[in-house]
Amino acid sequence: MLRNPATKYRPFPPINLPDRRWPSQTITRAPRWLSTDMRDGNQALIDPMGPEKKQRFFDLLVRIGIKEIEVGFPSAGATEFDFISGLVRGGGIPDDVTVQVLTQSRRDLIETSFASLKGAKTAIVHLYNAVSPAWRRIVFGMTRDEVRAIAIEGAKVLRDQAAVYPDTDWRFEYSPETFSTAELDFSLEVCESVMEVLRPTPERPIIFNLPATVECATPNVYADQVEWFGRNIRNRESVVISLHTHNDRGTGVAATELGLMAGADRVEGCLFGNGERTGNVDLVTVALNMYTQGVDPGLDFSNVDSIIKTVEYCNNLPVHPRHPYAGDLVFTAFSGSHQDAIKKGFAAQAARNDQVWDVPYLPIDPKDLGRDYEAVIRVNSQSGKGGVAWVIEQDKGLKLPKRLQADFSRHVQALADATSRELDAADIWERFETTYLAHADDRFRLVDYEETGTAGDRIFVGRVAVDGAERSISGRGNGLISGVVAALAGTTGPTLDIVDYNEHAIGHGADAQAVAYVECRMADGRTVFGVGIDSDIATASVRAVLSAANRAG
Amino acid sequence: MLRNPATKYRPFPPINLPDRRWPSQTITRAPRWLSTDMRDGNQALIDPMGPEKKQRFFDLLVRIGIKEIEVGFPSAGATEFDFISGLVRGGGIPDDVTVQVLTQSRRDLIETSFASLKGAKTAIVHLYNAVSPAWRRIVFGMTRDEVRAIAIEGAKVLRDQAAVYPDTDWRFEYSPETFSTAELDFSLEVCESVMEVLRPTPERPIIFNLPATVECATPNVYADQVEWFGRNIRNRESVVISLHTHNDRGTGVAATELGLMAGADRVEGCLFGNGERTGNVDLVTVALNMYTQGVDPGLDFSNVDSIIKTVEYCNNLPVHPRHPYAGDLVFTAFSGSHQDAIKKGFAAQAARNDQVWDVPYLPIDPKDLGRDYEAVIRVNSQSGKGGVAWVIEQDKGLKLPKRLQADFSRHVQALADATSRELDAADIWERFETTYLAHADDRFRLVDYEETGTAGDRIFVGRVAVDGAERSISGRGNGLISGVVAALAGTTGPTLDIVDYNEHAIGHGADAQAVAYVECRMADGRTVFGVGIDSDIATASVRAVLSAANRAG
Repeated sequence: MLRNPATKYRPFPPINLPDRRWPSQTITRAPRWLSTDMRDGNQALIDPMGPEKKQRFFDLLVRIGIKEIEVGFPSAGATEFDFISGLVRGGGIPDDVTVQVLTQSRRDLIETSFASLKGAKTAIVHLYNAVSPAWRRIVFGMTRDEVRAIAIEGAKVLRDQAAVYPDTDWRFEYSPETFSTAELDFSLEVCESVMEVLRPTPERPIIFNLPATVECATPNVYADQVEWFGRNIRNRESVVISLHTHNDRGTGVAATELGLMAGADRVEGCLFGNGERTGNVDLVTVALNMYTQGVDPGLDFSNVDSIIKTVEYCNNLPVHPRHPYAGDLVFTAFSGSHQDAIKKGFAAQAARNDQVWDVPYLPIDPKDLGRDYEAVIRVNSQSGKGGVAWVIEQDKGLKLPKRLQADFSRHVQALADATSRELDAADIWERFETTYLAHADDRFRLVDYEETGTAGDRIFVGRVAVDGAERSISGRGNGLISGVVAALAGTTGPTLDIVDYNEHAIGHGADAQAVAYVECRMADGRTVFGVGIDSDIATASVRAVLSAANRAG
Repeated sequence: MLRNPATKYRPFPPINLPDRRWPSQTITRAPRWLSTDMRDGNQALIDPMGPEKKQRFFDLLVRIGIKEIEVGFPSAGATEFDFISGLVRGGGIPDDVTVQVLTQSRRDLIETSFASLKGAKTAIVHLYNAVSPAWRRIVFGMTRDEVRAIAIEGAKVLRDQAAVYPDTDWRFEYSPETFSTAELDFSLEVCESVMEVLRPTPERPIIFNLPATVECATPNVYADQVEWFGRNIRNRESVVISLHTHNDRGTGVAATELGLMAGADRVEGCLFGNGERTGNVDLVTVALNMYTQGVDPGLDFSNVDSIIKTVEYCNNLPVHPRHPYAGDLVFTAFSGSHQDAIKKGFAAQAARNDQVWDVPYLPIDPKDLGRDYEAVIRVNSQSGKGGVAWVIEQDKGLKLPKRLQADFSRHVQALADATSRELDAADIWERFETTYLAHADDRFRLVDYEETGTAGDRIFVGRVAVDGAERSISGRGNGLISGVVAALAGTTGPTLDIVDYNEHAIGHGADAQAVAYVECRMADGRTVFGVGIDSDIATASVRAVLSAANRAG
């Protein structure tokens, strides 16, 4: 890298649009969606899709609800042509889906493109030529007039070829390539020249696609360009403005969103951002960004995992674990404070009567994408008490009291520090059992017990194995718990002062169990916790006190 | 997914800032960079880094040139604390690098944080608490005043702890979490309360970090929030405004860029966008976006492949093949028109005298990142003649004439269609050899030749194997080529009309070879091409004519 990059790289000149309106707009309705997965996406694959994969991808796009699909570049070769004409003639295109093909502006290529679509009910032919100065100078060695003439010639062939196949409802798209690096006035001039040939109407508008073929500036610049174009193009009511952004600067989604705010009507892109180099804009992210703002994108990603699998199979490229909405890790919180907040968010959600989604750290309900809540939280050495408690609650139904969460999290922390790896739910539960629940080698082990007496004056008589020898112990208190405490105090056991007590059912019906939690202060000021689980709610309490006694040891 | 998501998801309310100034700004200088790879990044890993990986990551960040590094959350556990105090006391922190640690606003945690940094020359303690309404309501059940009191209390502990360790130059950072979803006036109020305790000056400013902990709106909204904050905060000259964006909506880079345009001074993020859920903003992309606009980011990614390897090792997460600037595929063009344009761009670059980068489809010179040009183009069934020619030129030094490129691309196309996989350079070269170069079973095979005569009247006498039988043939012309053509016409060979002829050296010095290309029209109107390679430039020509004769078949 250069210390002074200004000698090599020039800043993109700003657009003069001081009265821009897009920064005050919001996106309130879905655009028309065009998937170019099978064209711009496919041409960027190490191993392009064969017919079987292409058909699978097409069917997926239809299922998601995409109504305009660029299926290929028919003049690029026999593979492309045969697939497209097979698709069209095979009758597998739903009535509400329009296929689109891309062609350069040459008579033979355009004719091949029309031929591939023969028999379609409706189709879009997408013409492009490069209008930007670097291309004119470096690639073609052409003047502006020569470049414009290529576009006009192509448009005439479109018009004439459409007449050759009158049974198809032909629509046209034109892309001034690469719009994002071209002079705005020249792109406009070429588009208007094309429009003069094709004579669109509000009922049969022309699509002007404005490609950021290469992302070359911050996304606000693209929005300025789009707004300028929309404000200056003649017959705006006969024009559909389409966006086609790439992601060279990592801001393809932003450019599309700001472009929509700038007045565009249509978005071209690929699922999960496949496409040349850094990819086309990701349609999934743009659509779900709308969804989480309450705007129906008209696309369905209810089973996002199945969509990911199909796309990964067809493209032979992975979806990154941190890909927005889709990655394996995006509904996963490792940090303790995040876990705690999410847990409380779910609880508040469950307690409210409205449907409004307001869970910290989760911009979307994972269920809306067919994902599980269970996947939300994992535990490692960065995790706090909230995450651990959440796992225990999800897997075992135990709602640990807050201070017990803190106590247990120290045990989990020590385990995580010792193992230096992620702990799974089984690790956590094993540590919980070891720490709090009854074991054969416990100092105090409950065999059986009876409880008698009157209200407020209870007598506990228990058979308890103490240091391995079974004996009878008894104690008196205002309730069962205090009776057990008294009974223990009469042995060589610890003196426990019960500070807090909680109990709840686990599960429903005949198989339900009960769990009891006690927090005790000992004579030396230390706090110990005890947990008991039993099918009988009273027995669970007794077990909890014995658990505390064992841990006081 | 819901058909009417408005019942579940509420749109983010727009910011009232009609006189916003950021849309007319550009980024003209680098911000201060803070890497939080070892904190926000590490806490989001399935397997958090152990001490060896943390040290490796720290050293990498120093090498890249990052001067502020958040090294962890010392109060989170023994692993964290021990690493941080070891790093500080080990003396491995360069004088111009400042370490930073994060802490919640609790006395014991803050004290632990200071203790971990004992002995540091300079350090930043980063305090945060959640101020946004969802957190106040759902997570803490606190009023605004209670939340502000937590921040003030924390700031007081910061101030007092700094006095306990007077040998360290302490700096402070405060984050109102999660700024992006909080009421602007309340975030400002809390920050100003913190400022009253810590009393920053222009020489010792406080860092106010404005986290988009969860991305919740289009990136222009974040820019509005940042600009509003910068215009309203008291003592702006004593404040460093820091950005901390996440990528939940895929627009974390854009939010950071627009935030810089809105007046921020500092950027927090992670390499390649690691971090909670969808990740923190990617520092590499933000920095290289500046670089390609001629702005020195002050960071060095000259050997990006080695950086990727280290980060993938430490994080145990991949960098996606389409990741801006860094992915395996981002300097790769498969499509023919792209390949052709890039090839011409390189040629124009080489021919010009200036250093200015202007190659179609490549926003950065791959060499600046330590990448090879060879990786730029691969060939598959979507590729056109430009790409194929490029591979041949790169690998073998042959500069195919344009019409020969077109001829050869048909052969490559057929091969690609037949194999349905990417062709590598070896495939292409093999097809080139098979198609044009001399083989043992050729109809005409050169054994030896002599050339005699005067200028303009040359006689070719060759020993040529014709259909396997060696014989002597001779012909006369104004040059060697026409002599060979005449000699062939005297056999049963084809009548060739030479339409075009090119020749160039391959390589330099004693080992240099020559290649000759001929384009011939045959009596029946067909065009055939011939190619000859030899250490002798004249012999290469003879071979080229025989090659055409063989192909005329």
